Parts: sequence; structure tokens; C-alpha cells
Amino acid sequence: MSAKFMFRDIISILDFTREDLETLFEFADRFIKINEKLEILKGKIVALAFFEPSTRTRLSFEVAAKKLGADVISIVGEEASSIAKGESFADTIRMLDSYSDLIVVRHRFEGAAKYAAEIAEKPVINAGDGRQHHPTQAMIDLYTIKKLFGEIDGLTYAVLGDLRYGRAATSFIYGLTLYKPKKVYLVSPPQLRIRDEVRRELIDRGLVFEEKNSILEVIEEIDVLYVTRIQKERFPDPVEYEKVRGSYIVTLGMLMKGKPHLKVLHPLPKVDEIDYSVDNSKYAAYFYQAKLGIPIRMALLSLVLGAG
Amino acid sequence: MSAKFMFRDIISILDFTREDLETLFEFADRFIKINEKLEILKGKIVALAFFEPSTRTRLSFEVAAKKLGADVISIVGEEASSIAKGESFADTIRMLDSYSDLIVVRHRFEGAAKYAAEIAEKPVINAGDGRQHHPTQAMIDLYTIKKLFGEIDGLTYAVLGDLRYGRAATSFIYGLTLYKPKKVYLVSPPQLRIRDEVRRELIDRGLVFEEKNSILEVIEEIDVLYVTRIQKERFPDPVEYEKVRGSYIVTLGMLMKGKPHLKVLHPLPKVDEIDYSVDNSKYAAYFYQAKLGIPIRMALLSLVLGAG
Amino acid sequence: MSAKFMFRDIISILDFTREDLETLFEFADRFIKINEKLEILKGKIVALAFFEPSTRTRLSFEVAAKKLGADVISIVGEEASSIAKGESFADTIRMLDSYSDLIVVRHRFEGAAKYAAEIAEKPVINAGDGRQHHPTQAMIDLYTIKKLFGEIDGLTYAVLGDLRYGRAATSFIYGLTLYKPKKVYLVSPPQLRIRDEVRRELIDRGLVFEEKNSILEVIEEIDVLYVTRIQKERFPDPVEYEKVRGSYIVTLGMLMKGKPHLKVLHPLPKVDEIDYSVDNSKYAAYFYQAKLGIPIRMALLSLVLGAG
Repeated sequence: MSAKFMFRDIISILDFTREDLETLFEFADRFIKINEKLEILKGKIVALAFFEPSTRTRLSFEVAAKKLGADVISIVGEEASSIAKGESFADTIRMLDSYSDLIVVRHRFEGAAKYAAEIAEKPVINAGDGRQHHPTQAMIDLYTIKKLFGEIDGLTYAVLGDLRYGRAATSFIYGLTLYKPKKVYLVSPPQLRIRDEVRRELIDRGLVFEEKNSILEVIEEIDVLYVTRIQKERFPDPVEYEKVRGSYIVTLGMLMKGKPHLKVLHPLPKVDEIDYSVDNSKYAAYFYQAKLGIPIRMALLSLVLGAG
Repeated sequence: MSAKFMFRDIISILDFTREDLETLFEFADRFIKINEKLEILKGKIVALAFFEPSTRTRLSFEVAAKKLGADVISIVGEEASSIAKGESFADTIRMLDSYSDLIVVRHRFEGAAKYAAEIAEKPVINAGDGRQHHPTQAMIDLYTIKKLFGEIDGLTYAVLGDLRYGRAATSFIYGLTLYKPKKVYLVSPPQLRIRDEVRRELIDRGLVFEEKNSILEVIEEIDVLYVTRIQKERFPDPVEYEKVRGSYIVTLGMLMKGKPHLKVLHPLPKVDEIDYSVDNSKYAAYFYQAKLGIPIRMALLSLVLGAG
Repeated sequence: MSAKFMFRDIISILDFTREDLETLFEFADRFIKINEKLEILKGKIVALAFFEPSTRTRLSFEVAAKKLGADVISIVGEEASSIAKGESFADTIRMLDSYSDLIVVRHRFEGAAKYAAEIAEKPVINAGDGRQHHPTQAMIDLYTIKKLFGEIDGLTYAVLGDLRYGRAATSFIYGLTLYKPKKVYLVSPPQLRIRDEVRRELIDRGLVFEEKNSILEVIEEIDVLYVTRIQKERFPDPVEYEKVRGSYIVTLGMLMKGKPHLKVLHPLPKVDEIDYSVDNSKYAAYFYQAKLGIPIRMALLSLVLGAG
């Protein structure tokens, strides 16, 4: 089964089936409790090329790789941006291809990871590019729901926030198309709705979804609330931002109107879209979700590098 | 004995007794001559969260951790400051708490390490925060004196420089309160004297100290001269800075007026507060002191992680 | 034979003989195919001090060190420049000297690596300083030619680009003086010719060379074309830059006028001085050359650290 992952590029969650994900999740289960250093990837070099900063994603790949015994090299921050100005992206990827056994790419441009995968002989993992794809985040999200509810099918979901530009939200919704959720509510201000190409994809894949303006309309019905951040910069008019902002801040009071087992997920980092009072409540699943980033990425790295 | 350190947060030198420090120093002695890679912390992840830059402290923690077989992940520089702007400090610490086994925190805000320790389940080591606390530096300073003089009690000390804002100086003076120095001279320009809360603490703890304006008044009497930097920015008036500056530059000529065994310590980095001619003299103990940062931090990491 | 390298500083390619390089190349041959992690340098700490950024050189040293089992600590980017502003270079080197077993230095100032070597007790490797010296790059270049042509003697070379300020080009030409090339053409705009001190050195060492303005004059005659970048900033007048620029861009058409076995080398990163069409042609040897950076640096690190 794990042959499905071996030496394969990981570009979009849509490239996978639920059977693939089951394999991954079973593998991740094994890593959850391991605290010792493994030698599964000893002698392998994992390159982290973060042309767009993301401390959390970078560190969790780094921890996952090191726990498996791999060595890690990184291009981050200032260095990544000065590279961006100088040599071509292709040449940078070629360099990493000849120095490492696997390349993790994060980039703000749509398609950057796919382009890297075309250039590199070694497998490429997309750690987020453009506005749609962040496959490892979607894997973590789905795995978290599996761990919390025992299944992903049959639940009612709301995805809240910036559905137009937020790649984590889009990847999560794409991920849900691999399963049979009862219903998925897509909740956002009108200007931050999913883009047409995404909507068509969801329809093609038979996802039962409905677009809403306010979370309050559906709070009582849902099992999972997936929150993402709305960036002020998305609004040309600050007044308009202030108007919608309040409706997209999740509070404990709001959650208490929902089902007792309702769980809040968030890809993190969060800024102010979830009130601090939620952090220590039974609803907050996002810190647990973040924790599962390590076993999922350990599973993925070992499967892709053929050590599964 | 080492149970005193096990899984404990290391926030202030004042949380320790001289017996604790003896335990630490004995442990450090063992690490001084070891050149091979140890496996004491194999499988452990040490997170370095340097919200304020400090290459020297960061690298010495990194070397100490790696020599013990641990893996290291880091947040530094630009990345740390962009985090500071975005997600809450608490969320960043929670992330590191779920990725690592121990968190080393450096921050310019008073109390940041303590706050981190309250949030994190894993032990937190303060690598310097605010204006008062830099406990591992004080451990190194005291250990250096122990190695140089065989004892910390009974000696006469001068602490020179910025005693108001300098956390290394304050931590060192706090550290001396755990011992019985003959006398401690606190030498600074009037505007950079120790703050009242520190003065009260020293009095409460029975330290025999005296505040002075000029090192020349006490140079003949002291065994240890602890030098710290006076930053130009502390003076609203550049003219005033230039006036005092000369009195706080340590020269070979000045030291030759002192005891033959007089030793100069400095937490480093130094800029121009010690004349280069001192570097190769018998008085300079600061490079030796820097070197002892590795065994002290190795000892601390292994004791705190229960590998002692 | 390898005693020639043991604990030795690596400052300039001119400090070596062709016999030294043969030893190095034989050693590198052994590392080319090794994919497992070695323990040759286990317990050693390699410090990378990149006061001038160079992702490629830094990463290849890092990969080389890690493949040999060493641990790596780094000063890079922003951090390196803030050090440059604060404490003295000497103190930074002293710090690294007490934390590590070998120091790799990159600096824009001429002589920085040599100065570091005078301060440090541990061996220092120059990873490029000033306008002349980048010895490990020259080693890689010569090794690449050896692998491609079987020998370095007897071939005709052209070195193209900025010969005045480019340290890779100068080091390569210096490296050729250790061999017996048939002829070396030095091709550059008049204002970017080799400096007088370099010209004298080449004459003293008996290199058969000729300076040219255009690569087209010699393209049919050469076996190896070594290309380096001409930086716009070297020209006070942008018009003048635009005038010469075109003559220093290597195209597939240009190369097709040369010998069928002609190979193009470049120390990388390249910007636009080689047309993309060359990348996938039989002429391009620069990606292969970049790849050989790892075995050469592995060989050098192990020889210098006495593990040869």
C-alpha cells in the first residue's frame, strides 16, 4: 500500500484517495507515542526551502525529519528572499536536488511546488504554495478529526474565514471531498467566498456544501468548526473590514450554543480570530491538531523516502 | 541531589542555593574534558527561542545540546520578530512545547521566561530576559571564579558598567548573594546605578556592598573585576556619555595597579570597554569564562532533562 | 600524504601543490558514491561563519559536514551583520574557536580568513574572502575538469566575466597555475581585467595566458569555458554596462561554434550570464560541478580534521 507514496511528489491533497490517507494515518499512529530517536532516515538529508516564512510548518517538518534520524538543511527568511532576487528558482531547486534526498517547498506563488517537482529528481513536498494547496496541513486536519471523532464521514462541518485566499481552508475543503461529510458550510464575508474554480471542483466531486455569511446560522448544527484568519489587507476599505470582523471572531459564548462535542480546528498561527477564552475550553482542538503535525509529517517523510 | 534540577524551570539565579550550584559545578567538571559526542540526550529536542538576538548564548546552548546528543530547533532573528508581531507569545511557546523537550527563551521583556514557564509543560530555561535575569550567565560567572580562585567566598569584587539595565551584571551580583564575598563594589556612573528593587534585595540578602563612581578608587583592593558594557543609547546627551566613557574603559595600565592575581571577567560580547591590550594579558579571564559556557550548559541541560 | 592537510588552515589555492590536490581528489572519489551517514567526524563541531551571504557554499559545507557525522553551528545573514557592527571580528572568531573544532569563514574583506586563522587555534577554511581567494571553489573546479577530461594539463581554457573583482574566477586561474594548461584566455571588458598583482603572480608562475575582449575570438579553440557574472554595479555608467553586457552572455549558438566536447563551468549562482537554453545541453557542466562540491568538501573536512 505504501508504494503509493514512495518517491512521489506531494503537491495537492486532491492527488490522494481516502485509502492513501488511511495508510498515512495508520503510519502516523505508530509514531505518536515514540519518543526515542529513530534511524529510519539516517543518512538522508531533508532540505527545507521556505521562500515564504512559516515557522510552525518549518519547525514541524524539521522535528519530524530529525526524530526519524535525517539531517536537515534550510533556506529561510532573508536568505530565501535574497535568493528569490538573484538566481532563478529553478537553479535553487537544482542545487537542493543535488544536496538532499527530499525537498520541502513553501512559496507564495501558485504552482511553485509543482514546478519544483518537475525540476527536481528527488521528491518534493508542498508545504504550502499559492492560494489553494497545503496538502500536509489537510492531512493533519483530517487526521485530527479521525482521532477526535473516530471517522471523517457523516459529520457536519463549517469552514470559517478567508475562503478565497486562504490555502489551508481550501486544502481542508478539498480534503473533505475525499470523504462523505454530511454537509459542509462555507462561511465567509461575500468578498472572501471560495473562487469559482474551487466551487466547480467541489461540485464535480459531489461535495454537499452551502455558502453562508454568518456562523451563527449554522453553529447548532455542526460537529467541526474549522477557523482561519481574515487578513485586514484583503479589504480595500478599513471600515468594511471593521464591519465584518466581529462576525468572524469565535467566542466561548458562540460555541456554547453548539453541540456539546463541537470541536474547533485552526491551522495556526491565529491572531485574534479565536477569543483567548476558547483556548482552555473543551472546544479547542487546535493545539492537539498542531501536535499531530509531527506524527503525520514523520509518516509522510518515511513513506515518501521509501522507509515505510 | 540532582533532583533539585530535574524538570525544573531555570528562571532566576535567586531560585538556587549554593548547594544547587555545587551540584551543577561538579557536573560541569565532568564535561570539561569530554570531546566525544555523548548520547545522554539522544532523542531529545531542545528548542531555542531567541526573541532577542544573542549569537553567543544561542550557539553555546546549541553546542551543549548537540554534544549531549540532542537535536536542536531554533527561532531566531527576523523570524522571531515576525512571530512577535503576529501570533501571541503564548501560542508560540505552546507550539515549541509540543515540538520539543525543553525550551530556552531569550526575550527583552522582563518576566518573559517566567511566563513561558507557566504556559509550557516542558522545562524552560531563561537565556536572559528583561534587565535582571540571566541565570545561566551567572552560573558560568561563578563557576569561572571557582575554577580560577578555588572558591567564591572571601574575595573582593568590583562590578563595573551599566548596573541599571545590564542583566548579566545584575544576575552576577544576585549570584554573589548566594556566597560570602568579602566585599562587592558596584561601580557605575550615577545614572546607571542598580535600581532600588535590586538594592533592597541585596540588603535583604546581607550582601556587603558599596556603590562607587570610579574603578580607580578600588582597583588595588579587588580580586575580581566584572566588566559590562555601557551603551551610548542610555545617555540622552552624547556629551555626557563622552564624559563618563573614559572612566569605564579598562586598560592594562589600570589593571597593573591592582593585585597580581586580579582577574577580569566579562559576559561578552564586548565592544570597546576593555582595551585590546588586556586580551592577551594574565588579567583576561573572559575568554576562559566564555569557554566554560559549554560545560555549564551541558551540565544544566542534562540535569534538567533528568539525565544527570 | 594526507599529513599535508592535517589541522592546516585552507586560505588560498596557491598554498597547495598539484600533489596535494591529487590527494584531495582521490579522497573525494571515495565519497562520491557514499549515501549512508558516516561517523568519521562524529563528535566534531564545524562552525560556519558567513559574514557575507552565500547559500550554496554554506549548504554544501553543511551537507558535507553532516554526512561525515559532524554537528554544525552557523552564523548567517542578519545575525552575522549585527555581529559585524558590534564585537570585534577577533572576538567572534575566538568564540567560535572555543565552541568548535573547525571554522569555515566567508567574508567580503580581503584577508579575513587569514586573520581568522591567526587568531584561532582550530583550523580555518576560507569559504571566500575579498576579491582573490576562494580555495575550495577552485578545488571543485579543478576536480570537475579532472572528472570530465581525465586531466587538467594540456587543455585550452577561457575564463570569462569579471576578472577584477570576482574571487571565484581569480582562484580558478590561480589553481590553473598548479597545472600545465596549453593556454588560458582571460576574457573580460577592459575595465574588468585581472589586477596587476594577479597578472604578476601568473607571470611568475609561468602560466601561458592571453587577455581578450571577446569570447568569440577564442571560442573555437577552447576546451573549457569558465563563466562568471559581471555585476551591473561594477559600471559607473549604465549605458556602458548595457554595451558590454551582450558580449558576456553565453548562448547555445555561441557554444555550437566551439569544439564538440567544449564544457561550460560556472561557480554558481548564475543570473543571466548563461542563456537558459544551455542548461540542458551537452555543454553545461555547472550543475555537475556544483554536485562535486559535496565530495570535495567532505574530503577536505576529513583530511583537515585528521580523519583522513
